[in-house]
Amino acid sequence: MTGSLVIAGLGPGAEGMVTPEVLEALDRATDVIGYIPYVSRISPRDGLRLHPSDNRVELDRARHALELAAQGNHAVIVSSGDPGVFAMASAVFEAVESGPAPWRDLDIRVLPGITAMLAAAAAAGAPLGHDFCAINLSDNLKPFDLVLRRVHLALEADFVMAFYNPRSASRPHQFASLLDLLNDQVEPDRLMIFARAVTTPQQEIHVVPLQEARPEMADMRTLVILGSSATRRIGRFVYTPRRA
Amino acid sequence: MTGSLVIAGLGPGAEGMVTPEVLEALDRATDVIGYIPYVSRISPRDGLRLHPSDNRVELDRARHALELAAQGNHAVIVSSGDPGVFAMASAVFEAVESGPAPWRDLDIRVLPGITAMLAAAAAAGAPLGHDFCAINLSDNLKPFDLVLRRVHLALEADFVMAFYNPRSASRPHQFASLLDLLNDQVEPDRLMIFARAVTTPQQEIHVVPLQEARPEMADMRTLVILGSSATRRIGRFVYTPRRA
Repeated sequence: MTGSLVIAGLGPGAEGMVTPEVLEALDRATDVIGYIPYVSRISPRDGLRLHPSDNRVELDRARHALELAAQGNHAVIVSSGDPGVFAMASAVFEAVESGPAPWRDLDIRVLPGITAMLAAAAAAGAPLGHDFCAINLSDNLKPFDLVLRRVHLALEADFVMAFYNPRSASRPHQFASLLDLLNDQVEPDRLMIFARAVTTPQQEIHVVPLQEARPEMADMRTLVILGSSATRRIGRFVYTPRRA
Repeated sequence: MTGSLVIAGLGPGAEGMVTPEVLEALDRATDVIGYIPYVSRISPRDGLRLHPSDNRVELDRARHALELAAQGNHAVIVSSGDPGVFAMASAVFEAVESGPAPWRDLDIRVLPGITAMLAAAAAAGAPLGHDFCAINLSDNLKPFDLVLRRVHLALEADFVMAFYNPRSASRPHQFASLLDLLNDQVEPDRLMIFARAVTTPQQEIHVVPLQEARPEMADMRTLVILGSSATRRIGRFVYTPRRA
């Protein structure tokens, strides 16, 4: 029996944003693997084993899914958003690279999803309407100095910026450091968007000028967007013009 | 009668990547507006008027849709990919800003879609697995010098880069200039991905080291990804590790 591994994006939360091809992969799955809150979005059914796991065990989870596929199962790893953007797809290929040679020949497919910055941008208007970058603020896997250096260069390039994983209980100070850097280098009325739990019933979107941004406006469920010098408000919408 | 305007992303091409909420908005539409090839993806039905229009008339198209909504119709502007990423959403808000005051109070919603870089990345593996930027190479609306300056700064930041609209018949030389800049500043084996017509029956994915990249590998249906210094191949996949 030939197994398979699909790494699927569930989108930011709303069921209306899960793509049909992801639903189809879930229908064919024998095993669904993922972080507890994402696996809890999957309806149980006969013949489907659910394998919820804790945060911060991405490599173990990836290896488990690869083993299941190598044994002939149809494994689906679920990520929120898009699996290729600060989520499980890279962890799977890291596990393939350091794993047994036959894993390289497995049937592995990545199915994209609506990543948080696209959903947050849509909810606010069109702040990603021109050149932009996406930066993971978590320093679990890289020094925070590198994060600040990238932000500094992105300001020089006048990119709109989307910040993923801005703040957690274990690292409350870094987002404050980022705000300090921004306040030092950017005009005080530069627009910031705090999009929390976007597309879920708990969604909150706050648009503030940089000078009113506070560290506690962000948590791990928040996607933060910093406008470019051209980003502006029109009525209740925020957008970045195409010529910027 | 109160009208509405939805700006909806159809994703990169495959029907399996159109979200349920976009299909629902199309079911309720009285008018669908968009560039000819995107409107041609919509099935005709009674009570639905289709308004295909040519390329490069984004503002006219946006105004037409806003007028239809202001008259009480349910207008849907269709974009490929995500409407907020180098597509129609910004043009709509530009038209709102320069249009009659009542347009600001219209019921306008943006529905996100799978943008080309996510689909291209998924087809190749996980090249966007760490900090990245997205740059529109078209100089229809900005000087090409600004594009090159952004690329230069993004190289310094070691971002993975996704290039939209790399090359067209009317500007064949710019992508060649970009390759010259890259060959000048980046190691020759830096990985590049040319993803053409991604998720359609015509899909072609080519992964080459920078030194083998040629301008004619790109056209207007191609999304180009340049890896960071950490992006690597493992078997038939390309990915960027999470610690980079």
